[in-house]
Amino acid sequence: MYNKIITIGREFGSGGRTIAKIVADKLSIPCYDKEIIDEVAVESGLLKEEIEKNGEQLSAGIKTPTIFTLYNLYSNMTKDDIIWHAQIKVIKQLAEKGPCVIVGRCADYVLRERDDIVKVFIYAGEKSKAERIVEIYGENDDLPEKRVKEKDKKRAAYYEHFTGMVWGDPKHYDICLNSEMIGIDKCAEIIASL
Amino acid sequence: MYNKIITIGREFGSGGRTIAKIVADKLSIPCYDKEIIDEVAVESGLLKEEIEKNGEQLSAGIKTPTIFTLYNLYSNMTKDDIIWHAQIKVIKQLAEKGPCVIVGRCADYVLRERDDIVKVFIYAGEKSKAERIVEIYGENDDLPEKRVKEKDKKRAAYYEHFTGMVWGDPKHYDICLNSEMIGIDKCAEIIASL
Repeated sequence: MYNKIITIGREFGSGGRTIAKIVADKLSIPCYDKEIIDEVAVESGLLKEEIEKNGEQLSAGIKTPTIFTLYNLYSNMTKDDIIWHAQIKVIKQLAEKGPCVIVGRCADYVLRERDDIVKVFIYAGEKSKAERIVEIYGENDDLPEKRVKEKDKKRAAYYEHFTGMVWGDPKHYDICLNSEMIGIDKCAEIIASL
Repeated sequence: MYNKIITIGREFGSGGRTIAKIVADKLSIPCYDKEIIDEVAVESGLLKEEIEKNGEQLSAGIKTPTIFTLYNLYSNMTKDDIIWHAQIKVIKQLAEKGPCVIVGRCADYVLRERDDIVKVFIYAGEKSKAERIVEIYGENDDLPEKRVKEKDKKRAAYYEHFTGMVWGDPKHYDICLNSEMIGIDKCAEIIASL
């Protein structure tokens, strides 16, 4: 069976998740984003909240085995490591199921040995991203520009920590799209056409 | 009149020039690449050979006014500066003429204040680029991988010197395409559709 996996890395507020969903709809294939969290929780024995928090950004780095992960103590793994390994397993299993779109979570790196993946990175200008997160997630105490900057910094650090590569560096992707300039729908159209 | 300029930055051997020509053909608009050299030569009073050599890479940095540029002595400009300023003028004039594709020469930066430009960057894997330059330019004493690396390094240095920005950094472009993975024709199709 012909299998095609699209991985979409994205800056916070770039609309990458929305683009991923449109692409999946166009191609009538599943889009895995938050869905991955549930499966990683089952796989790792950790709480969904922990996966959501540390599935794409490093925790403080302290080795904090919980009651769910005491069995991992012997291996000296951090919570981040446990999540990372569970995430790898889940992403590989999802990719095995058939064509799909996978959002974030270093899926481009996790699936790098497959020859049927299209690796996409979505980015946008800082101002555009700040406006988009306010529109989607609302205001909070921090300035939206600061929220975007911090989130992207954390995603970049996570990616670099586990893959040894630079997040958003074109050479790791097949196509990089500036959603602010190209437009959300056009980005989805281009990706679906690949 | 509706005007649309496509600037294509490209790594050496990525097929960027070929893609530019296909895009221009598809849209029935001119493609400016080597043609720029002739006009810059007229504009600067320098020899075509000098423009060809230093239009996208810095010379040794020595101030070498020729007989053609003695009038520039007073301004303390290097030959690179003279070419750069002539190139800016020529690129702006070409863009004023109407829709076109412009290859390299920091055109994305030169035309940054226009709101009708699409900024593209084409790249590819080192092995793929090395194979392509042998196919197009033939062998020479240096290994093709070395030729690619050195040429890209010089283009990056030139871009950074005159624009203060990082060559190939997605944030300066609207779309970045890996021609090795996407294919020359598909890259051209995507760009023409923008």
